[in-house]
Amino acid sequence: MSVPDTQTLRVEALTQDAFAPFGEVLDTAAASTIYTINDGTAQRFHALAQVDTQSGGGAPIISLFRAQPRELPFAVRMLERHPLGSQAFMPLAPHPYLVVVGSSPDAIPRAFLALPGQGINLHRGVWHHPLLALAVTSDFLVIDRAGAGNNCDEVMLPATYLIVSAAVTS
Amino acid sequence: MSVPDTQTLRVEALTQDAFAPFGEVLDTAAASTIYTINDGTAQRFHALAQVDTQSGGGAPIISLFRAQPRELPFAVRMLERHPLGSQAFMPLAPHPYLVVVGSSPDAIPRAFLALPGQGINLHRGVWHHPLLALAVTSDFLVIDRAGAGNNCDEVMLPATYLIVSAAVTS
Repeated sequence: MSVPDTQTLRVEALTQDAFAPFGEVLDTAAASTIYTINDGTAQRFHALAQVDTQSGGGAPIISLFRAQPRELPFAVRMLERHPLGSQAFMPLAPHPYLVVVGSSPDAIPRAFLALPGQGINLHRGVWHHPLLALAVTSDFLVIDRAGAGNNCDEVMLPATYLIVSAAVTS
Repeated sequence: MSVPDTQTLRVEALTQDAFAPFGEVLDTAAASTIYTINDGTAQRFHALAQVDTQSGGGAPIISLFRAQPRELPFAVRMLERHPLGSQAFMPLAPHPYLVVVGSSPDAIPRAFLALPGQGINLHRGVWHHPLLALAVTSDFLVIDRAGAGNNCDEVMLPATYLIVSAAVTS
């Protein structure tokens, strides 16, 4: 049986467990260690993710991304990966966005709805779709790698995967 | 002449130039390189700061801080520094906060008002006051160092420095 040309992707809730094969969720609920710091005036939700950028002599940098909103239905036709480094995205305003990742270019991608307050850290080499902001232009803090070498592979998928709505379907 | 016991600190605007002795400002205005990425749907304000956490075998981590608001007038009596690594703070909601840094424990500290959308990256070893959120409990994404060794020095200042208002005084 051949792969159908177009499939609809269900949208999953972005939980630490569901996202674990791809990276970490950056939110307070994901913290396994919480310190009280600064003379009791702050909490540190510690080490939610490691920054993994040393491959090929790379170094970690901090950037800002400003992403235009995408319209739904959205057709996922490609994925990319950064073979030399992790990449973290933290939204700077309380707007939901979609995260699409894949275990391989041949697997059916998975779509997650990131709620306000949820960032992600993609492990080195994880296939993912470029940012999918929703509704409004959205700024993200990004922690990834600078350095020599090819750190971006792109692949066209064998089918088109349609995200019809951002609502989580259980 | 002895140092007066209490002095009032003026509050400065947080600009890249003014803050350069201490670290980087993380905002779109500070970008010297802007790439259009993701098939034209996003802008990358590139490499606003380097993460400097390799000293003593350290590694970069991503955490969240939740800071309670401080009341003004606020008395600055101490500073701390992280001799082994840089530390970046990016606010996750559009609330201003204060940044207090010093070139040494003997120098008069400098206070900066960070506006919505402005984060900071403190260079390794820069003396600074713990987070000074204003008005509301405020979450920050923090990029700093994990690893062995003492990475926090604290010092009591020889005088008390009072921040009376968060308004920038020119």
